[in-house]
Amino acid sequence: MTYRAPVADMLFTLRHVAGLDRLAADGLAPELEGDMAPAILEEAGRFAGDVIAPLNRIGDKVGSQLRDGVVTTPPGWREAYKAWTDAGWNGLTADPDFGGQGLPQLVQAACVETWNSASFAFALGPLLTAGAIEAVKAHGSEHLQQTYLAKLVSGEWMGTMNLTEPQAGSDLNALRAKAERAPDGTYRIFGQKIYITYGEHDLTDNIVHLVLARLPDAPAGTRGISLFLVPKFLVNPDGSLGDRNDVRCHSIEHKLGIHASPTCTMVYGDEGGAVGWLIGEENRGLACMFTMMNNARLNVGLQGVAIAERAFQQALHYAQERRQGRAPGYTGEGMSPIAEHPDVRRMLLRMRAQTQAARALCYRVAEALDRAHRETDPAARKAANERAALLTPIAKAYSTDIGVEVASMGVQVHGGMGFVEETGAAQHLRDARIATIYEGTNGIQAIDLVQRKLPLSGGDTVRGVIAEMRETVNAVAQSNAPGFGKTAERLRDAVDSLERATAFMMEALGARPNDALAGATDYLKLFALALGGASLATKGLVAADDSGQPARIASARFFAEQVATEAPALERAIVDGAGAVGDGALVLVA
Amino acid sequence: MTYRAPVADMLFTLRHVAGLDRLAADGLAPELEGDMAPAILEEAGRFAGDVIAPLNRIGDKVGSQLRDGVVTTPPGWREAYKAWTDAGWNGLTADPDFGGQGLPQLVQAACVETWNSASFAFALGPLLTAGAIEAVKAHGSEHLQQTYLAKLVSGEWMGTMNLTEPQAGSDLNALRAKAERAPDGTYRIFGQKIYITYGEHDLTDNIVHLVLARLPDAPAGTRGISLFLVPKFLVNPDGSLGDRNDVRCHSIEHKLGIHASPTCTMVYGDEGGAVGWLIGEENRGLACMFTMMNNARLNVGLQGVAIAERAFQQALHYAQERRQGRAPGYTGEGMSPIAEHPDVRRMLLRMRAQTQAARALCYRVAEALDRAHRETDPAARKAANERAALLTPIAKAYSTDIGVEVASMGVQVHGGMGFVEETGAAQHLRDARIATIYEGTNGIQAIDLVQRKLPLSGGDTVRGVIAEMRETVNAVAQSNAPGFGKTAERLRDAVDSLERATAFMMEALGARPNDALAGATDYLKLFALALGGASLATKGLVAADDSGQPARIASARFFAEQVATEAPALERAIVDGAGAVGDGALVLVA
Repeated sequence: MTYRAPVADMLFTLRHVAGLDRLAADGLAPELEGDMAPAILEEAGRFAGDVIAPLNRIGDKVGSQLRDGVVTTPPGWREAYKAWTDAGWNGLTADPDFGGQGLPQLVQAACVETWNSASFAFALGPLLTAGAIEAVKAHGSEHLQQTYLAKLVSGEWMGTMNLTEPQAGSDLNALRAKAERAPDGTYRIFGQKIYITYGEHDLTDNIVHLVLARLPDAPAGTRGISLFLVPKFLVNPDGSLGDRNDVRCHSIEHKLGIHASPTCTMVYGDEGGAVGWLIGEENRGLACMFTMMNNARLNVGLQGVAIAERAFQQALHYAQERRQGRAPGYTGEGMSPIAEHPDVRRMLLRMRAQTQAARALCYRVAEALDRAHRETDPAARKAANERAALLTPIAKAYSTDIGVEVASMGVQVHGGMGFVEETGAAQHLRDARIATIYEGTNGIQAIDLVQRKLPLSGGDTVRGVIAEMRETVNAVAQSNAPGFGKTAERLRDAVDSLERATAFMMEALGARPNDALAGATDYLKLFALALGGASLATKGLVAADDSGQPARIASARFFAEQVATEAPALERAIVDGAGAVGDGALVLVA
Repeated sequence: MTYRAPVADMLFTLRHVAGLDRLAADGLAPELEGDMAPAILEEAGRFAGDVIAPLNRIGDKVGSQLRDGVVTTPPGWREAYKAWTDAGWNGLTADPDFGGQGLPQLVQAACVETWNSASFAFALGPLLTAGAIEAVKAHGSEHLQQTYLAKLVSGEWMGTMNLTEPQAGSDLNALRAKAERAPDGTYRIFGQKIYITYGEHDLTDNIVHLVLARLPDAPAGTRGISLFLVPKFLVNPDGSLGDRNDVRCHSIEHKLGIHASPTCTMVYGDEGGAVGWLIGEENRGLACMFTMMNNARLNVGLQGVAIAERAFQQALHYAQERRQGRAPGYTGEGMSPIAEHPDVRRMLLRMRAQTQAARALCYRVAEALDRAHRETDPAARKAANERAALLTPIAKAYSTDIGVEVASMGVQVHGGMGFVEETGAAQHLRDARIATIYEGTNGIQAIDLVQRKLPLSGGDTVRGVIAEMRETVNAVAQSNAPGFGKTAERLRDAVDSLERATAFMMEALGARPNDALAGATDYLKLFALALGGASLATKGLVAADDSGQPARIASARFFAEQVATEAPALERAIVDGAGAVGDGALVLVA
């Protein structure tokens, strides 16, 4: 069973939940006139399904291999990457001045999803390149932009992000990599970086490393970190490749999943110092990093959606083919397809509803990013920016959490077959498992949401989002469409819980930060359940008005009645979290 | 970080939740006089930690290998297995007439847990042998018992279970393996069996296969299945090994986890028929299988507990060593151990509380099995038997579900390190993943609970268990011990939900089976949350009366306030399940 992009649901979600139609109506998406969006998605889906998806299993089996400092990607990967960049997919949202197509994030979000469904490990490399493009574009000098941007946008070169060191993971205060000023205005970089995704490989002739390091006179902590561009090969004035730079891949990790994505330990400056160029200002490197954080986190959220979609398709296909037992009421011959058994159907419906809810959350963030860039009114830009900031940690954490859950359920639907690697279901679980960890663990996302995002505009941002959910709930309550069941009732409970939990959090934040932090993860999930439920309900309402597609209503109902029901439980856990979690001295004794 | 058996918690749970003290007071455990139970557990724990646990990683890395029909276990495994059987651990509960020690299941349960914590793949083989012992003991002829039991009890030979065929997994109706009567009273067996755990290996000189097959004149369906004993080597009258039997390992699976446990495709009768002996009566093979089902399912539940305990220990150790950031209120120097961060502590507490709740559920089943065998009053035996039958699917499914969840959370606590195989956290997740599938998927457990177990004694069995939970809740409500927080309140909500959901299920079962089946999985979880919460509360009450160990109260509180809070949500999902899940025709269209 190969992968087929769910173009219909992607488009429906883009148009009716993420506001692609409104964006166009507001004149903010002139590139998408006519049938541009569907055409792009159809073509991306075809490429993903036909060219990339077949490479996913060999990518897992063979993996990327390091020998004598050279990393070799799995058979077929170089060719696929070249075909993908030749077709122009790398530069979809990039500045047309550097060869990009300047399309909205909304369209890109759907494309990122489809590349990752086809092969998570394949699609991961270009995500890092996208971050490098953004950093160089926003903060790089004219010289750096002219030298690197066009090649990065075309995908002829790839980019990396070098943050982590053994002692500095979630906490970059502890960063030790050093940078020294050279007389010619460049820098020399020294140090070791770990977990560098696609730090070394054979997909491109050059690799553009973005590296965080400290200058000798830098202040301690994160206010003393600078960002440098360090190419694998120096670039001559005519754009040709020059000397090999003093950076090498020391080893690659043996990982649970994404075997084809080389996770490298990189060593800088072993032979006198790697030549680097400052990006932005000295000691302001973290700010440069943060400008691309939202986008990278959205992309990781989309990886969660992607792996869930892939796992769902595979499980559904299996459950419709595999026959065991006879489901009550089954009228066919012999054994039923296992999809007919209520418990298996419950699993499939849960997989689908959660995948679609996560998709809606991610696409909503993409829309907010588009408005933040495209609105002409500064107030509207600010509002959109804050909305993106608020929703990004939710989209990242919820989507990657359900990525793991849905992939695991996919294994379960396959029964014994799911545990056998040849089936492919287990690979999705292994691949999915990284996404809750990298680009800020989901615990960090929850803390970010509670500490930094709830206070935005004094709470008006979050209250605005909740108010919109209420409108949706009211619309469902007033809808006469059959099939919604208790959707309105259950979603109202969820939004009520979210509202009370939000008030609790805002109050706790100042006086009792530990109380807020103890419940942060549950709060993020509660937010996702309410907003995810409202998003599916929105789709159900449009479907009811429109062609009456009952599957969309059924999905909204399933989410509200079977998934979002957890909301009041989360509220209780949040409010009580301080007592249960707080007494640290006692609770961790056996 | 190696594994240390949690002997204190095991014993406390055995004594105060699973009623080991009561069993002894009732004169039903004469073997456990004095300090026998703690002595056995200490010794088992030492053996598990010192001898088995160090082999777990190489077992994963090298795995069992098939070459020319011969399966070789990983380096060190033969020696460890020999040392383990030499120490007498294989025959702990077996009949002393055949060299066993006749100890209660309660003690065995704790030992099974500790072997599986040390190495899931290692401990799995003896679990199959235990099933074979039970079947031969209960249904085998005098000849079979004399020929095989002593060797199986000592562990000199191992046993296997051969049920599954490609078309017959959860549904044994579709079984096709054939048996023919031979003139000498033996049988000839033909057919292919898949997923045969330890079907071939080098740990023992002989392997005793128990095989389900059909006689030529057998009725269709499961009433036409017979059980046969098929040894790898025929056994001469003097007990020495004779000819190689016509059974061979065709291939072994490449699996997500438990790499050291060879999962074999076995071929019977390719060269004229494998010689087999009937166990029990013709066409009654499934009944023979079912006599050992409860026990095997309990053991798989214990595997869930075991892997959760191992993952928890590893994560706790890491979180106390690894330093990142500064937790609010942390007063030490430099960065805090990550265990000080509320979100990490929440994960650790959740891991521990769920592990301990699952342990309590499994040990409760073991106690019921002991009483079912040891009570002298027939009514008491029947009641205990039904209690074991009721609780077994709950213990199996909940424990293995949390095994996966806890192991996954263990990966999360490790951050990026968790995704790197050398750390070992990922192996626990991979190993744990099988336990929700085999020995009856957890969906099958839920169906068994609802369809077969709730109706026992007209519902009196389940009502009795719920009534006991109420007593515990009332005792917590009346306790003056500090630290319980809202434990009583939350548990009362959970028991109320369970009681209403039970009434709903009993009512739906007859008239609307699909409605009951749609909510079966959620119902099982609800039951486990209420009973798990009550079990931890029982421990907390004893601790409060006793030495006031605050960690036990804290764990009870955490479970009640942060985990069992989901109970009302599950009740809602169960009652609404029919509508949301039921409309199968619509809901699986994209």
